[in-house]
Formats: sequence, C-alpha cells, structure tokens
Amino acid sequence: MLRVGVVGYGTIGKRVADAVTAQPDMTVAGVAKRSANYEAATAAERGYPLYAADPDRAGSFRAAGLVLAGDVDDLAAGADVIVDATPAGVGAENAATYAAHGTPAVFQGGEAADVAEVSFCARANYDEAVGAASARVVSCNTTALARLLAPLDEAFGVEKARVTLVRRGGDPAQTGRGPINDVVPNPITVPSHHGPDVGTVLPDVPVDTLGLKVPVTLMHTHGVNVTLERPPEADEVRDLLAGESRIALVPGWLGVDGAGKLKDLALDAGRPRGDLWENCVWADSVAVRDRDLYCFQAVHQESDVVPESIDAVRALAGTATAAESVARTDAALGMGLSFGAPGYGDGPTGRPVSVGVDGATADD
Amino acid sequence: MLRVGVVGYGTIGKRVADAVTAQPDMTVAGVAKRSANYEAATAAERGYPLYAADPDRAGSFRAAGLVLAGDVDDLAAGADVIVDATPAGVGAENAATYAAHGTPAVFQGGEAADVAEVSFCARANYDEAVGAASARVVSCNTTALARLLAPLDEAFGVEKARVTLVRRGGDPAQTGRGPINDVVPNPITVPSHHGPDVGTVLPDVPVDTLGLKVPVTLMHTHGVNVTLERPPEADEVRDLLAGESRIALVPGWLGVDGAGKLKDLALDAGRPRGDLWENCVWADSVAVRDRDLYCFQAVHQESDVVPESIDAVRALAGTATAAESVARTDAALGMGLSFGAPGYGDGPTGRPVSVGVDGATADD
Repeated sequence: MLRVGVVGYGTIGKRVADAVTAQPDMTVAGVAKRSANYEAATAAERGYPLYAADPDRAGSFRAAGLVLAGDVDDLAAGADVIVDATPAGVGAENAATYAAHGTPAVFQGGEAADVAEVSFCARANYDEAVGAASARVVSCNTTALARLLAPLDEAFGVEKARVTLVRRGGDPAQTGRGPINDVVPNPITVPSHHGPDVGTVLPDVPVDTLGLKVPVTLMHTHGVNVTLERPPEADEVRDLLAGESRIALVPGWLGVDGAGKLKDLALDAGRPRGDLWENCVWADSVAVRDRDLYCFQAVHQESDVVPESIDAVRALAGTATAAESVARTDAALGMGLSFGAPGYGDGPTGRPVSVGVDGATADD
Repeated sequence: MLRVGVVGYGTIGKRVADAVTAQPDMTVAGVAKRSANYEAATAAERGYPLYAADPDRAGSFRAAGLVLAGDVDDLAAGADVIVDATPAGVGAENAATYAAHGTPAVFQGGEAADVAEVSFCARANYDEAVGAASARVVSCNTTALARLLAPLDEAFGVEKARVTLVRRGGDPAQTGRGPINDVVPNPITVPSHHGPDVGTVLPDVPVDTLGLKVPVTLMHTHGVNVTLERPPEADEVRDLLAGESRIALVPGWLGVDGAGKLKDLALDAGRPRGDLWENCVWADSVAVRDRDLYCFQAVHQESDVVPESIDAVRALAGTATAAESVARTDAALGMGLSFGAPGYGDGPTGRPVSVGVDGATADD
C-alpha cells in the first residue's frame, strides 16, 4: 500500500487525494494546506490528516478548530510518494524538502520542466518515469494534446499539429480571475509554450499552439488540426479515438452542444465533482480533408491531470507497468466512454447503445 | 409506497426523480421526456421507465435505442401522484390529463398560480395542500424568500420586506440564454411579480421585489432588507436562521466569497450534482440597523424547489404532516447546515466545529 502525501489541497490536490483513496494500492498519508477554509474542512471531514503548508498561517487552522499533524517536512518524512499540487513555482521551492527525505515527488505542469527528472503523460512516456526520483505531470492542455496526438501518430503518422487553445479564464471558484468580457491572446507570442511542452513527453511529434483566454470557467476547448502522413477516413479516426480509455467520443444524439452540457452530463452520471477526466472529442467534429484532420475537443482543466498524477505515483514507485497502472487507475475512477455509466456513450462504431425500459443496457 | 410520475425530465425533473428515489416512502413510476438526449440516456441508465412527452418526437428515442413505455396519459394512469416539471405553460396544458385520471399533480412555479388549487412552500403553508388535487410549488426565488421570511415573521414580525433579486441569466447547460455582458432589469416594472408570488404562500407578509438578470449561471443572489416590528440583535437573527433546516448559514472562516465557491463546496461535500437545496445566507452579511435587517443569500435555482416538490407529493397524498414530511425529506437528501457532511458548518452559535486530525468531529 503506497502512502501518498498531497501537498497543496486546492483544485488539483483535493481531487488527487480522493483519487488516491479510490485506488486499491494507495492510501492518503496526509494533505498539506496553507490556511483553513472550506477545503480544509473537507479534508478533515474525509479523514485526511492535515499538515501546515505555511507554518506562519497555522493559526488559521487552530482558529477554525482544525488540528494539524505537522508540516510539509513531517509529511514528506512519512509518505512513500509526494504529489505536489501547489501553485506554480511553489513546487520548485518544496523540491529540496522532498529530496532531503529521499521521497519521490510528482509535480504539476505549472512548474518548469526542470523541477523534475522527467515530464510525464501516461499515454506518451510512462516508462521514462519508472524508478525516477521525480516526475512532472504536464499541464491540463498539454496532457490533452499528448493523449490525442500519441494514438494519431502511432496509427497515421503526425507530420505536424497546429492547435488553437481556447482557454478558460479561471476555475469556477476563482473570483479574482479574468477576463470578464474579452478574448485575450495569451500568451501573445506565437507559438505558445504549450507546443514545446508536448515535446517533453512526445518529442517526435511537432506541435504549434496558439493560446487565448476567454470568459468561461468550465473547460478549455481546442480547435485541432493535425496534418497526417497516411490520412485515414474520418470514421477510422473516430474508431481509433473511441478505443482510447482517456478520450471520450461524444456522439451527436446526446445533444451536447458545449462545455455546459458536458459538465451537466458528468453531474447526471454521478461523477465526483462532475469531473471529466477524459478529453471530450465531439464525434461530429471529426473531419479529414486531404491530409488534414480536424476536430474540437473540450478539456476539463480541474481534473484531466488527476489520473495522470496517480499513474505517475506508481511509475516513480516502480509498482506497476504502464498498462497495469492505467487499467487500475481507470477502473478505480470509473473512466470510460460511458461517462461513468453504461447508456451514455456509444460503441466504437458510433452506434448508440440499446437501453431497455428497465434500464438494463443490451450491449454493455 | 407512493408511485410518483415525473413529467418533464430536465433541470428540475431529473433532480425530482432522484430525490423521489432517495425517499423511503416513494418510488419513480416513470419519467416523461420530449426527445432523446443525454438526459434521456441518464433516465434509462437509472432504471426510470421512459414515457414520450411529445408523441411526435418519439422517433428520436427509437433512433437512440431507447425504449418507450408509453405516453403521458399512460404515466398519469399508472402513478399515484404526478410531478410536472415541464417548461412554463406546458404544465397548464397537461393539467387536464392528470385530472382525467384523478391523479393529484404537483406543478412548478413557472406556471400561473391558477394552474393548481394551492401554491406551496413547505415552510409556509404545507397544511393548505393536504388532500388537495393539485399544488404549485412556487418558483426558486419565491421559495427562498418564503423560507427566509416565515421564521423572521414568526420571531420578530415582518412589517415589510424589500428584496433585490440578482438573477442568473440561465442554467449552466443553457447555451441559448443571455445576457452575455449586461445587467438587465427584468422585469423592468417595479415591483416585480416575485413579491406577489410570495403572497400566495405567505399572504400576511408584504414583500416588494426588484428583479435583474446578470451574466452568471450558478445561482441567484438576493440583497435582502426586512423591516421588523420587534428588531433583534444580529446574532439573534443568525441563531434563528441556523435553526432552519433549509437555510444554510455560511460562516466567514470557510472563505466562501461567492456562488462559485458555494458550488465548489457542495461538490467537495459529495452533494449529488453539487446541489444546494438550502438558501445560503452569508453569516457575516447579517446586520440590523434600527428596525432594518439586511443580508445576502444565494439561491441554487436548479435545486432549491426539489425538496419542496417532494413535500408537496406527500401533502397531496395526505401521507404525512408538515413536520413529518420535512424531516423525512431532509434526512433522505442529507439536508442541513453541514452541507451534507459534518465539519463544514458551524453550530447555531456560529462557533466552528472542532475537527480532529483523524477526521472525527468532536461535536457532531
């Protein structure tokens, strides 16, 4: 049983902790947080021992009646692996603490690539992280790009990908973020850093990216172009993507016209926090013209790196192969085309499932 | 066991069906929907027999492989009580069908008051609906106002309430609604219809309301003023509201600064769909100046009428008193100050709970 310490208990950290709890081979050693708020109350309620990420603010926990078990140093000492989900730049400050205890550490994509020995996406380069002292799970957008491009490259050869990333301005709970009413080229320089970041896990697939920020909080949306070496029919692409466990192909008959309905669907399906761990690719958007493949995909920035963080823990610990870890993570979380429940999705052929009046599914 | 038919399986209907399933004394007889989409797939997945709300569109179910059990007439014939959660105006068209079968029916607040024998809010006038043939659960905003004003009137006497309703423009999945970037007085006439609607369930409490629509989807927010006959201290008001099962008093230390964090908190707590059935009143906003009480409350438009719809079913069926029904509904859903989990809320005195490091709560 791997004891996992989670440092930083915000949007990503709280999801990683719950995902750790769902795994058959992991347990939460504790979670570190800077100050007491509703998320700290959740952590205590879930039975996660609380550690002070910032000793100067430990008083806020005492004032709220929340008991602390120690600080980040204590947590690093007592954990087999650390997942650092602190804000960008803080992970780099924490790295020495983890190293001092010889505790392998998983960092998030907000950190610079040199924070860890290897950058990581399970679909792209799991094996490179096996036995390493540290790994950096690439960002939500980069993860989604790598998941999409890896199978396309294997099946059809990617000559070059060009992707416009229409990024959410902030998360639903982030009241201080913008823009409120603008479309902001961000970064203004082209190509953006996302393409090179894909190169840290898929070095042989050239990707140029353009980044924008828009006034939404639910998901990122990618306008994707991939020039292929051996162009297939659109249906072959749909079949390929439908076979990927971390890509959800969204059939047209569901009537899902945007991120709002995707999230509503996830909530209806009983997904924890309405999370969508998979890339959501609209089946009707998949098109091939000459050697150019096009599609739209939506990316849930709060959760798509969560299963990758779980896999990274096993890779560093050396306790599972890529196939074993991905299968175990996916089964524990309830990943899949079905959005967590049979009846939603369709088979790899795009054919809707048959759902009987008694709710039993005919072919699931 | 009351067999409840749900006609209209959208934002409210799907939540009512799940809430019915959670009750110890009710079961879902079936749900009627106009056309096949992701929500219809959910209904089938959950084992709710599907009925065609619009026979002209029944083909969309067949095309999706979803089997229909009949139409609304069939559902009305086979149910003990109907909850009609169709779009505004459709309930009035359906009323004759329910009446023809002698099936008591609960309508929603989008309908005109004369759609039913009585308008309904459990906290205000449960007894008036006992044994009636039909009841109309007042709208989300009206429900929230009645829940707040009923206890204030009982405890301190309400001379007059004046409330500005800052309303969400649409629900998260409604991509066709606006405004995108405006504050729209709506209705432009003052006072708005909401105040008189409160009068249908609390006739002796005068309320003037002003309505606006803003570019948010998460919740409504009310700026509340209540002129009281016997003005209390602010802490007395907090104690009073903390004692109401369908009002959640949000303490300041949680760091919840808006609807985004309220919804995030609800998702963290594992609430189904992140629903907030309670009025959420910011404890720090409660103030009394002379005889004027002020506060802010947030209202989750997708879910606050759900427990009321459940209570209305029991009232029409005559199977429970108000106290019995509210207690049963609240227990089945997991209602309460704690947002579904001990450790979030604070006691009626505003004192934070003590949460041990092992996650056990000291005073829950």
